[in-house]
Amino acid sequence: MKNNQAASAMPIHKYRPYHEQIAVDLPDRTWPAKRIEVAPRWCAVDLRDGNQALIDPMSPERKRIMFDLLVRMGYKEIEVGFPSASQTDFDFVRSLIEENAIPDDVTIQVLTQAREHLIRRTYESIAGAKQAIVHLYNSTSILQRDVVFRTDRQGIVDIALEGARLCRELEKTIPETTVYYEYSPESYTGTELEFAADICNQVLAIFEPTPERKVIINLPSTVEMATPNVYADSIEWMGRHLNHRENVIISLHPHNDRGTAVAAAELGYLAGADRIEGCLFGNGERTGNVDLVALGINLFTQGIDPQIDFSDLDEVRRTAEYCNQLKVHERSPWAGDLVYTAFSGSHQDAIKKGFEAMEADAALQGKSVDELVWAVPYLPIDPKDLGRSYEAVIRVNSQSGKGGVAYLLKTDHALDLPRKLQIEFSGVVQAKTDAEGGEVTSDEIWSIFNDEYLPAPADRAEDKWGRFELTRTRTASDLSGSVSLEVELRVGEDVIETSATGNGPIAAFLNVMSEQGIEIKLYDYVEHALSASGDALAAAYVELQVDGTRLWGVGIDADISTASLKAVVSAVNRAIRVRDADRELAAV
Amino acid sequence: MKNNQAASAMPIHKYRPYHEQIAVDLPDRTWPAKRIEVAPRWCAVDLRDGNQALIDPMSPERKRIMFDLLVRMGYKEIEVGFPSASQTDFDFVRSLIEENAIPDDVTIQVLTQAREHLIRRTYESIAGAKQAIVHLYNSTSILQRDVVFRTDRQGIVDIALEGARLCRELEKTIPETTVYYEYSPESYTGTELEFAADICNQVLAIFEPTPERKVIINLPSTVEMATPNVYADSIEWMGRHLNHRENVIISLHPHNDRGTAVAAAELGYLAGADRIEGCLFGNGERTGNVDLVALGINLFTQGIDPQIDFSDLDEVRRTAEYCNQLKVHERSPWAGDLVYTAFSGSHQDAIKKGFEAMEADAALQGKSVDELVWAVPYLPIDPKDLGRSYEAVIRVNSQSGKGGVAYLLKTDHALDLPRKLQIEFSGVVQAKTDAEGGEVTSDEIWSIFNDEYLPAPADRAEDKWGRFELTRTRTASDLSGSVSLEVELRVGEDVIETSATGNGPIAAFLNVMSEQGIEIKLYDYVEHALSASGDALAAAYVELQVDGTRLWGVGIDADISTASLKAVVSAVNRAIRVRDADRELAAV
Repeated sequence: MKNNQAASAMPIHKYRPYHEQIAVDLPDRTWPAKRIEVAPRWCAVDLRDGNQALIDPMSPERKRIMFDLLVRMGYKEIEVGFPSASQTDFDFVRSLIEENAIPDDVTIQVLTQAREHLIRRTYESIAGAKQAIVHLYNSTSILQRDVVFRTDRQGIVDIALEGARLCRELEKTIPETTVYYEYSPESYTGTELEFAADICNQVLAIFEPTPERKVIINLPSTVEMATPNVYADSIEWMGRHLNHRENVIISLHPHNDRGTAVAAAELGYLAGADRIEGCLFGNGERTGNVDLVALGINLFTQGIDPQIDFSDLDEVRRTAEYCNQLKVHERSPWAGDLVYTAFSGSHQDAIKKGFEAMEADAALQGKSVDELVWAVPYLPIDPKDLGRSYEAVIRVNSQSGKGGVAYLLKTDHALDLPRKLQIEFSGVVQAKTDAEGGEVTSDEIWSIFNDEYLPAPADRAEDKWGRFELTRTRTASDLSGSVSLEVELRVGEDVIETSATGNGPIAAFLNVMSEQGIEIKLYDYVEHALSASGDALAAAYVELQVDGTRLWGVGIDADISTASLKAVVSAVNRAIRVRDADRELAAV
Repeated sequence: MKNNQAASAMPIHKYRPYHEQIAVDLPDRTWPAKRIEVAPRWCAVDLRDGNQALIDPMSPERKRIMFDLLVRMGYKEIEVGFPSASQTDFDFVRSLIEENAIPDDVTIQVLTQAREHLIRRTYESIAGAKQAIVHLYNSTSILQRDVVFRTDRQGIVDIALEGARLCRELEKTIPETTVYYEYSPESYTGTELEFAADICNQVLAIFEPTPERKVIINLPSTVEMATPNVYADSIEWMGRHLNHRENVIISLHPHNDRGTAVAAAELGYLAGADRIEGCLFGNGERTGNVDLVALGINLFTQGIDPQIDFSDLDEVRRTAEYCNQLKVHERSPWAGDLVYTAFSGSHQDAIKKGFEAMEADAALQGKSVDELVWAVPYLPIDPKDLGRSYEAVIRVNSQSGKGGVAYLLKTDHALDLPRKLQIEFSGVVQAKTDAEGGEVTSDEIWSIFNDEYLPAPADRAEDKWGRFELTRTRTASDLSGSVSLEVELRVGEDVIETSATGNGPIAAFLNVMSEQGIEIKLYDYVEHALSASGDALAAAYVELQVDGTRLWGVGIDADISTASLKAVVSAVNRAIRVRDADRELAAV
């Protein structure tokens, strides 16, 4: 069987292999035989490296929401900014300190380049904090020495040492703050190992690590340049060559240029590192920092406590998406919309049998299923442990090959359903057609969709759909960030008029519904114009938790704001329908 | 420096570490000391594993577009479906064969479970092909033996051997087709290694590998269960225990549950594998298959020819997004919108110095820059080699911390710019304000945006914006998939009426523009409703290549179809403006 692959025209002469640039020689490496047994120290850098890589940086409000989220999840070391480089970062650090937002067991970290005026400004920013990590860096790589700093190794060492000495002086100016140190030879992966060790050791001599005041040596793959085993080799090599090793915390800061940051962090940790810096869902410069969610939950699947709370991962995701204004991809490890779906019949069958076997085992042992070791094919984790659920999606095709449910709703009705709603609606179609992989027409799909999500058309007003119906709305905004909403609402047989305020029409409407005894949590909101019809309607989709049930609602209207309120009503009516059906079942 | 991390409430008792499930013991491993020096054999499984994981599977038209793309890029082994499991897959394989769509040097691969009726149907599907790989699998893991098949090892071996024997029989029924074989012990990562080797060796005895007809043994991480070094150990172990090793092609098929599929593929390849199965941009079940784009370009950055053409990566991406109806994430390695951006001043400065140093070096050596080894800080690759460009984004804040350009356009004008347009427009704002990181009001941003992308308002009709202006449109569709478009268009001082057809209004309009001598290639199209204004306008954004220049256009209209045509006009006018400015400069 011949390999027919042929040479491409890609200009490979422009690139040199990593080993011709940096020698990493460790034939007696020990890391490949080791296993991870305990969580590393985590440091979340979402507010610095993550924020720095956004087209629109976070507002102070968003930064605070991110900070509080990280604290709530259990991160104890949080890099909060580069205060000397940006007034907004400076002001944010001050606000955290002055508003007492930092719990006693949390240490903030601030980044500074090794330049005098930046270091001075950095110490101003942290005055008053109980403790803080000053993270000093300068670039050490061959390339940056050549083209950016135009200096030799000694020149680069001098920059680091002058910076470190100034830090030690300035620490006396803020005696009420315990200052810890982190030093990064930036662009470490482009630096000769012996030089990296040398500069770190010289900086360590100034920072004087002790058991009570260990010093962090952070070895970033500022740019990921080689396979992750090479990074691990380099970390093990450094561990053998750093002085005061017992009082040094070796920290990793992997970037994801090659798509192997998670592996680099894991293998580097096996190689003797103590600590990992990263961002939720891998935000950060270019391809991002290493993904803290993947790393943490990877540990969890091995029965190792990540020491971080991932039990409501959708909430974590929603918050990160709001702060970063970047969506988490459908296939993002442990968190994406599609990662707990099974489409193929054989997978679904195996998963079903796995669940059944666990239930049988539990019954046999007189235990609950949650006391057993998780063992379901194709599901490496119980999605429930992260607040998610397993979805068996049976794809319903129409006219073989003409596309599936979501495709037909899009082409024939201009509705572009969010991914999770596509999954939910596939289940609805499947339940109604009971045709495994069978055929269903576009008209049937549309009729099922209407039945499930949209109010009955006017000519069938006698069969009113659901307990609630929106009959009139009016919103007013004074541009202060608060919206007031008046609505006329049919509730069962009654019509009520009421009003509420919120930071937007949906928030205000959730307050209206709360008055009606319906407690709602909003998980997702998406809207778009309907392009096919040409009459400029808009569709809105909301994912809500209504009295403990998670589901979607849909609204269509010429006014997008009204469409979104209709979507909330749709979800609420669906939730009530589910609950009533359950009650009927229970009563039988 | 105390570690304050505390135990979480995550239910770790439900999970067992991998090494307690599967023993992988290889103290004399050799792979960590090896280096990758040549591209592996690639097998693209987008049309099978990728397609199988889409909510809406690809239509035959999309499948064919994907197949042709993979062929064009240089993939020589392409898994085209699971023909015995789905009529659409069967029909697609037949259409490839009957329409002579498979080049002589490309081998199609078809998947089949080891069950008699499925195998028979598989051979029917490939009859008439010049050559094909029959990919036989059955599940071998401890868990699946226990809960799905409820049989012992011998029972599982029997399934495989009966399947393999039937294959050998059926191969005689299609003598005109050279049949090659691939066997997968599915759920390999959950299978004891000695059993995996045993079943593979028994299957090999039936397939009888020879130098001319090697057999592929594919070792999938059907579910990724451990750090990637463990997968590599298992591959090296298997390489030592498979019979006929010289005539066996060891293939990897990594899934990305833990976010380490790229690393697993790379380390497994170091460990002696010959071949890698994956999908473009990591599409596939759950978190996806390994990303073929990341793997290929990773090789390229080391001066190793991937034997695949990635020189127009945006085109590859656009096609994959169309076929899969899944977006590639902003931070996806080598391909995401944000991976060649630099936001921080220090990064931008270093990159600038890197470019300058390369130019100076080239001048000194009397060479072109493209003849030199690439060496620019923070850019591990020359984006130009992939048809991309480096973007220095200077973020313009308004009222410190109130958000940046994209945020203000969204909050104040309801415009939700696509990511790459945000990057482009940041540059426009920067050029017009010349205020590094400085302040600019929301009104100023809006005025710059109008000036750059939107036609002059009616009361300034005397200064007509650009050569083209759309003054009337009419579209008609007979629902056959073709749209006819009539437009009235101002071209300079003239007004013309013309018409064209296309598979949509934009396609038809591009034909109109082509008649006017403007050659356009469409790269991206996004539209949405304007929610803030409440008057149900829609915005459309297009990324075009106009006579060699890539840029964006924007259109706003009550009718979404008109908005999209306006967006095309906007981009074309901008392109002409750029060209005229260049000419003026050249004339000076």
